[in-house]
Amino acid sequence: MDTPAVVLLSGGLDSTTVIAMAREQGFTPYALSFKYGQRHLIELEAATRAAETFGAARHVVADIDLRIFGGSALTADIDVPKHSRAEEVSNPTEVPVTYVPARNTIFLSYALAYAETVGATDIFLGVNAMDYSGYPDCRPEYIEAFERMANLATKIGVEGQGIKIHTPLLKLTKAEIIRAGTELGVDYSITSSCYDPDSAGRPCGHCDSCLLRLKGFEDAGLIDPLQYQDA
Amino acid sequence: MDTPAVVLLSGGLDSTTVIAMAREQGFTPYALSFKYGQRHLIELEAATRAAETFGAARHVVADIDLRIFGGSALTADIDVPKHSRAEEVSNPTEVPVTYVPARNTIFLSYALAYAETVGATDIFLGVNAMDYSGYPDCRPEYIEAFERMANLATKIGVEGQGIKIHTPLLKLTKAEIIRAGTELGVDYSITSSCYDPDSAGRPCGHCDSCLLRLKGFEDAGLIDPLQYQDA
Repeated sequence: MDTPAVVLLSGGLDSTTVIAMAREQGFTPYALSFKYGQRHLIELEAATRAAETFGAARHVVADIDLRIFGGSALTADIDVPKHSRAEEVSNPTEVPVTYVPARNTIFLSYALAYAETVGATDIFLGVNAMDYSGYPDCRPEYIEAFERMANLATKIGVEGQGIKIHTPLLKLTKAEIIRAGTELGVDYSITSSCYDPDSAGRPCGHCDSCLLRLKGFEDAGLIDPLQYQDA
Repeated sequence: MDTPAVVLLSGGLDSTTVIAMAREQGFTPYALSFKYGQRHLIELEAATRAAETFGAARHVVADIDLRIFGGSALTADIDVPKHSRAEEVSNPTEVPVTYVPARNTIFLSYALAYAETVGATDIFLGVNAMDYSGYPDCRPEYIEAFERMANLATKIGVEGQGIKIHTPLLKLTKAEIIRAGTELGVDYSITSSCYDPDSAGRPCGHCDSCLLRLKGFEDAGLIDPLQYQDA
């Protein structure tokens, strides 16, 4: 249990499942979250709880204000798109308006700096098949290219140990993620997924993220423990 | 003059030469500087002056605190190494203690977000041959790997235009950089290079960066217009 691994932890369903998986694989998690001008700060509280639950040695919250560049529904004043059914969400031929420019690249770059600092060669990221339907920086070829670049960028890379980007959710459906996490003891009542929660932190139930989550629970034959706004 | 390009601008000799080159090549510079817990904030003032001088359409200063991770002379409480001669500086077999983990990767990631936001496909970075003697993230193979990753990471990459990372100083000596900049009208009295300036902003004359700069001016047959602490 003393091999360090940096785990990108938003506090959402996916990353909370990932920190449980990293722990299960014998890593000591060094959790990393971001305040990046997102509207849904409730996620950070969920991240803190998940870091505690899964034995993180440290939890660093990096404050990066991507609003200096503008350009996304998650950070600027564009309306978050709402739907009534999950089937309306994904269109793999288009990049969603909720896309944040270079977000995963910035997140992984920070994870790389953190990894070098604590002497870790393993980085865990919760990208998955549902997400990469539209986001270019969630595709396997992107992750491979980042890993290759990371090995040229760093002391650890130069000195030959090698950085590994783990993406254990990459080919799992939402239902498979939820089943795997449930088996590892993830309490999904502590995870937040909504792009547009109300002031009490209750998820909207109609943004892309909520709909994919609800469909995941339904497909897994499980009940989502969250209280939705209109429930 | 209406093709936008993001220019990473520290305010040092190299990046100030680069913004002059970007302008000369017909780009409209979108300058990007960082406050990253460095001791030498004087550089930011130099960057602001350089952005104004070379017609930047915008100058964004991103506040990123890499001290949350620790680990470098430029951001933590390690002594900046001092020497008396430039020949003592570079040892290509070792990574210098002034190395900041994943620094260029973080800087380029922000540049990528900025580029996507303003619709630029060109990014200028002032890495050069003297620097990459010890820093892994200043080598040509690193820059190529970053560019490849960037093209997989972004809307612009997915939609086929392609991101280009320009490194016009890569194979130039310090003397060649200074000669090129002087021809383009760079006023090197506005550039700061020192890792450890005094409170009046005067360079120390003995850190790696000062020694390489002084040797560059000497080799170019020019006089460094800066006032050094012990001059």
